Amino acid sequence: MRVALGVSYNGQAYQGWQSQPSGQTVQDRLEAALSRFATEPVHTLCAGRTDAGVHGLMQVVHFDAPVQRPAASWVRGTNAFLPSDIAVQWAHAVPDGFHARASATARRYAYVLLQSPVRPSVEAGRVGWVFQPLDGDAMRAAAAQLLGEHDFTSFRAAACQALSPIKTMQRIDITQQVLSAGSTGMNIPVCYWRFEFEANAFLHHMIRNIMGCLVAIGRGSQSVCWMGEVLQARSRQVAAPTFAPDGLYFLGPVYDPTWGLPERTPAFDWLP
Amino acid sequence: MRVALGVSYNGQAYQGWQSQPSGQTVQDRLEAALSRFATEPVHTLCAGRTDAGVHGLMQVVHFDAPVQRPAASWVRGTNAFLPSDIAVQWAHAVPDGFHARASATARRYAYVLLQSPVRPSVEAGRVGWVFQPLDGDAMRAAAAQLLGEHDFTSFRAAACQALSPIKTMQRIDITQQVLSAGSTGMNIPVCYWRFEFEANAFLHHMIRNIMGCLVAIGRGSQSVCWMGEVLQARSRQVAAPTFAPDGLYFLGPVYDPTWGLPERTPAFDWLP
Repeated sequence: MRVALGVSYNGQAYQGWQSQPSGQTVQDRLEAALSRFATEPVHTLCAGRTDAGVHGLMQVVHFDAPVQRPAASWVRGTNAFLPSDIAVQWAHAVPDGFHARASATARRYAYVLLQSPVRPSVEAGRVGWVFQPLDGDAMRAAAAQLLGEHDFTSFRAAACQALSPIKTMQRIDITQQVLSAGSTGMNIPVCYWRFEFEANAFLHHMIRNIMGCLVAIGRGSQSVCWMGEVLQARSRQVAAPTFAPDGLYFLGPVYDPTWGLPERTPAFDWLP
Repeated sequence: MRVALGVSYNGQAYQGWQSQPSGQTVQDRLEAALSRFATEPVHTLCAGRTDAGVHGLMQVVHFDAPVQRPAASWVRGTNAFLPSDIAVQWAHAVPDGFHARASATARRYAYVLLQSPVRPSVEAGRVGWVFQPLDGDAMRAAAAQLLGEHDFTSFRAAACQALSPIKTMQRIDITQQVLSAGSTGMNIPVCYWRFEFEANAFLHHMIRNIMGCLVAIGRGSQSVCWMGEVLQARSRQVAAPTFAPDGLYFLGPVYDPTWGLPERTPAFDWLP
């Protein structure tokens, strides 16, 4: 029986999703817990690998279950063996034709950015940070230049293993939540920016590299048109430095509704 | 010159606020950073000590500055020497008559509780957790019995150093934010509960002990009237076990507005 799981995790303590000899990855912890619960080795395939320090609100994996268990047992049983910062949110039996990566028609990510004269504290590791005020209209105009099918080589890490740098960006939403923080003694508005990205697939570091460019434009150190120039250059040399992983959340893959899988987890509501 | 600071911190990594020989407390880290910035020893007095694992959204401290610095420098300079999970949010020069503890007319705390069949993951350590559905009306009726001036001995830890167990509870607000989480495969509503407490002062473990009783009543294992019986018993033996520190946030002290201090920090907006 093939089983799909929705998994959420805080990425701060892990060296990313993908299994490594160190064992310090989310996949290593998940497979160890599944294997203990199943009392046989379990191997998983995921919808989208995340980098070190990146969080997952609804990673989806599938595996072929070596033992028969009710769906709710895969949730409770596996969670009993997982560390406190990783949890299986749901489990569903799926047809053998379902594949967590290949069946996904798109992926969604969010980047949460604190704009404040003071760096994060309570939310350290879970938001990016800028102390300069950003221009939302400039960032939206720049982001619009990335929509549609493009060669995203300029935003691709050297280690990227994707077969092609050509991806289709379907949506970039940039919203601002102004905070009622009282006087900070300094004179810039305090807010959370939320950047939401949807594409058929993403290259390695693609969102963090795009974020670096958007922030450079938002604070006025580059023009709006620079984004299009970076895209067309097809060279990593021209783009801004890779932005911090702290505020990046994998919201999850998009599947055809006929698979009947949930589209979000309770963890989504924690974000600004 | 006397200086007041607003400080926010994630309490997960610390043995509470109060300085200890181990040095693993928030006060130890703050005083070390202030002393490095001032290049002379700095000692602070706080508005309300927090337990191990409890978070602070606006702790307030005061100290008599051994050196003259602009207010903004106390923020930036101290933050440069603090770990990433503690930050000074604001600094204000105050008259010598100001005292972070003695000038506070009240304190505010919030407890955030995830009600879900699945335990927290992304927000582990920052929310409490119940898997049974809670009855909000029952909890509100029980909480109303605590309002006003009472002897709170039943909710007081053995180690409490307060001179008197008599405190005045001014407000307990209980609100529910239902989450649009999709199917979890199990059949209880998923939500965040937020409990907000305001009193002139709190005894050691008082909120966590009240939370234990409120949750027992909310899930129906005790009656609404039991809260009044526990209060009148003036005995720690009759109350519920102390609830987890994970979801407890010190929102900060309340001062007379004539002191001109901020009432909140940007960190407040991160909470549900």
